[in-house]
Amino acid sequence: MNKISTAVLLLATAAFATASRAEAPAAKPVHGEYKDWLTLSISHRLEKQLMRTILGNEVAIKAARAGNTKPWPDGSIIAKVGWKEKTHPNWPQAVVPGEFAGAEAMIKDSKKYAETGGWGFGHWEGNKLVMNDKEKSATCFACHAPMKDNDYVYTAPVLQ
Amino acid sequence: MNKISTAVLLLATAAFATASRAEAPAAKPVHGEYKDWLTLSISHRLEKQLMRTILGNEVAIKAARAGNTKPWPDGSIIAKVGWKEKTHPNWPQAVVPGEFAGAEAMIKDSKKYAETGGWGFGHWEGNKLVMNDKEKSATCFACHAPMKDNDYVYTAPVLQ
Repeated sequence: MNKISTAVLLLATAAFATASRAEAPAAKPVHGEYKDWLTLSISHRLEKQLMRTILGNEVAIKAARAGNTKPWPDGSIIAKVGWKEKTHPNWPQAVVPGEFAGAEAMIKDSKKYAETGGWGFGHWEGNKLVMNDKEKSATCFACHAPMKDNDYVYTAPVLQ
Repeated sequence: MNKISTAVLLLATAAFATASRAEAPAAKPVHGEYKDWLTLSISHRLEKQLMRTILGNEVAIKAARAGNTKPWPDGSIIAKVGWKEKTHPNWPQAVVPGEFAGAEAMIKDSKKYAETGGWGFGHWEGNKLVMNDKEKSATCFACHAPMKDNDYVYTAPVLQ
């Protein structure tokens, strides 16, 4: 891994650790409005032992289905919902969600968030969406900068 | 792995291979009505190199949110949507969906499918849901039989 990749990875880890601390573990977590959103894609983040589903609000889903994501339209919200990975207790060949680890948001507003590629970064604390301050958003954006040609988004929508 | 586990695994692999063959690979696959359904959970099936999202129709989601899944009510449909796993081209620590591999269904009708625990098994061919014949359903059911105490369902809903 080169130095830039390592730096990006450390930043990502730091950003997530901060988000996770804000979410007190709970037997049954309270989810935000994303629980009523449709799927853009999923991922298994091996370096964080996280299972993630990536959901979109109505604007984002409509854009993804129309192939209108370069750039994503203003009003798009992408929710990245993560759980610690767990081996399925009855099917050890499957990795499934364990403890809820937190949900992060990317909100497109090309004017409001012009400094960070048009994206605002935040996370849900329970069902409340809390936007990050500028310093923390800059950290988030640093990890997304390599995806400039994809409007700074790593997720490729797969369920259109 | 004991003999029963091996047998179950082989049956599961056989069942999925059959479903996969029915789905001709396409650049942009046609999805069934599940594309408008909400998330129950996700999984990474290591033995099949598959990434899966598990979605529910309105009846299933309502049941999951109410904790009313032992048994799931008649009319519940669970869609298991799979893609071949792929390393994210710009983030090699992430496994993400690659080529679409197929979508399978479990439909609850305690009378119609009484012989297989009240569940009918099928798969989508494009946007058309095709129910399996009795022989193939028996193969599906054999893999789900160990989950009898969970109404034959492996998925634990996580986004309630």
